[in-house]
Amino acid sequence: MRVNGKPQRSIALAADGRAADIIDQTLLPHAIDVRRLETLEQTVEAIREMRVRGAPLIGATAAFGIWLAMMRDPSDESLQRAATTLRGTRPTAVNLRAAVDEMVTLLQSVSVAERAATAGERAAAYCEEDIRINRGIGEHGVELLEDLAGRAAHRPVQILTHCNAGWLATVDWGTASAPIYLAHQRGIELHVWVSETRPRNQGAALTAWELGHEGIAHTVIADNAAGHLLQRGLVDICITGTDRTTAIGDVCNKIGTYLKALAAHDNGIPFYAAVPSPSIDWQLTDGATIPIEERDAMEVTHVRGLADDGAMTSVQVTPSGSPASNYGFDVTPARLVTGLITERGVCKASADGLRALFPERASAGVVDSSD
Amino acid sequence: MRVNGKPQRSIALAADGRAADIIDQTLLPHAIDVRRLETLEQTVEAIREMRVRGAPLIGATAAFGIWLAMMRDPSDESLQRAATTLRGTRPTAVNLRAAVDEMVTLLQSVSVAERAATAGERAAAYCEEDIRINRGIGEHGVELLEDLAGRAAHRPVQILTHCNAGWLATVDWGTASAPIYLAHQRGIELHVWVSETRPRNQGAALTAWELGHEGIAHTVIADNAAGHLLQRGLVDICITGTDRTTAIGDVCNKIGTYLKALAAHDNGIPFYAAVPSPSIDWQLTDGATIPIEERDAMEVTHVRGLADDGAMTSVQVTPSGSPASNYGFDVTPARLVTGLITERGVCKASADGLRALFPERASAGVVDSSD
Repeated sequence: MRVNGKPQRSIALAADGRAADIIDQTLLPHAIDVRRLETLEQTVEAIREMRVRGAPLIGATAAFGIWLAMMRDPSDESLQRAATTLRGTRPTAVNLRAAVDEMVTLLQSVSVAERAATAGERAAAYCEEDIRINRGIGEHGVELLEDLAGRAAHRPVQILTHCNAGWLATVDWGTASAPIYLAHQRGIELHVWVSETRPRNQGAALTAWELGHEGIAHTVIADNAAGHLLQRGLVDICITGTDRTTAIGDVCNKIGTYLKALAAHDNGIPFYAAVPSPSIDWQLTDGATIPIEERDAMEVTHVRGLADDGAMTSVQVTPSGSPASNYGFDVTPARLVTGLITERGVCKASADGLRALFPERASAGVVDSSD
Repeated sequence: MRVNGKPQRSIALAADGRAADIIDQTLLPHAIDVRRLETLEQTVEAIREMRVRGAPLIGATAAFGIWLAMMRDPSDESLQRAATTLRGTRPTAVNLRAAVDEMVTLLQSVSVAERAATAGERAAAYCEEDIRINRGIGEHGVELLEDLAGRAAHRPVQILTHCNAGWLATVDWGTASAPIYLAHQRGIELHVWVSETRPRNQGAALTAWELGHEGIAHTVIADNAAGHLLQRGLVDICITGTDRTTAIGDVCNKIGTYLKALAAHDNGIPFYAAVPSPSIDWQLTDGATIPIEERDAMEVTHVRGLADDGAMTSVQVTPSGSPASNYGFDVTPARLVTGLITERGVCKASADGLRALFPERASAGVVDSSD
């Protein structure tokens, strides 16, 4: 999508073809810093420190990481080391593991001499595939917004989202944002409530920034405010992303998503997750078994932002002696999810719903959902 | 309760008897600054800027504000002006209006010459009354914790709270915190999950600080994490305060309370509000009609805390062009509330429940709740 009017992707091959360029998302929205990843180690650091984040984007970044490792040393040992290191960076999103596994399988099937070139091509293809998938989510999801626009002619369609499932979380278009961007391009009046998403504020810092650059009306809220907005009829639809969705439609996503889904359900407001198929874990039928990342307590005890003097500054908000905990994700049970917006269409959050859209992926072993 | 081992109240008559001393809560937990309120104007500023906050404490502060006005000018005009100005400071908590109305009625019944002394006595009595009420909430609420301690002998009783309904929100003891402090004094093992409570972080800044000074185990979490903790069985009971509870048991409290109540309900975990009777609005039977304060968007776009250099610093977390909204409270419907802990006992969150405990207050006009 656009930054200052110019098209921009969150990750791309560098002009010299020797590195991957990313936007350092830890500096947004206050500075746009394109950072060059030249080594596996730099790639691992970027994922771990969340310079790149979002399930689809960390999948793409991991693919580039394998490529960078292969350019230096295409041996079997190097490939295994790269795969193991990348898998260990972040546990929750399934895209990361899937991308790494796919790269390993592919590269093991080609000669050592071909590995760097093959890895580079596959990483580039992975990015194009991500964009195609997100565009597909947009095409299907926009119908929901068109429908709401038809019904609520008196005001812009009011969308609530959480965290950043925008283009910054993917290579381009985003997942939850794709229907929003398409609807905006088609002239549908929209307004997006952006939940700030403590502790890392991806909503306030990233989603608001994206929407601003696309000229889409939006308002940032404290995460706590979502229930009140839903209760008072100020939201028509909720759309979030996902880091991993089980084969029966349980949606694991950024911590706090479950609370929004509960409030949407309690007020009869539709709650959708935008689910690119690479984030579906076809092996899992119980959301409670998804590993939930625990991150550094400093992300809770401190908040980073722009001080008056223009410097990025971290301020402590808790008393010095108080511990904090920092779970990164929660699981929204399928029963609270109105539907899943995938690149193949919108389906019920159930084994049957997913199986109907992805018959070739849904394994015979998956238990039928009860609905 | 205690600060650095010494007993402390949130508001008290100054040693010279000419002012009220408050702790400036906007500087906590990083600095303990006792601030002298000598005039009505200083009192109004302290309430509006939330140097004092919490429904019971702003009631007490307003009583002192009337006293300060009467010391300068005990005329009818001065009394009415003080009452009007104080009523206009914050709209949601009912205690403020009730305290002001009571002071006005009382002072109108005495001569101008007696007003300053009468107001001072009443403000002091108001404080003692608040402490007695909170102590009563503690005595009744501690039974819930004793019961849980008996059942969950394998681990400390896990309590989730939101915002600050501690002694800093009252004159002393607090409301939601009173059962916790009493239980701790009685040797019950506890651990409190403290929800940080964006946008003003009263949980992270105030509740964690209070608990630390009382030596009670606690962990600060992002507001978003409450659902996950409840879902994973890490919470035994939720206790929050209230700014206004209707005659049928709808609980208006700090924004985000409703989301926690939904998650508690979804997981079968008891959710209690600690409700001192002065925060019950006996005239209201519909929580949706409670005026919800909207505060400055800056509280959402910026976060204040302690920078590395030891200075209180405000950092911007949103892009400069992005608007924010800032509702201060939400309403938790009675159906989600397991019970109300009052100074007279624990009751169901219903007209019948409240009427049984407060027969003299529950007006004949209140419609029966449906339960």
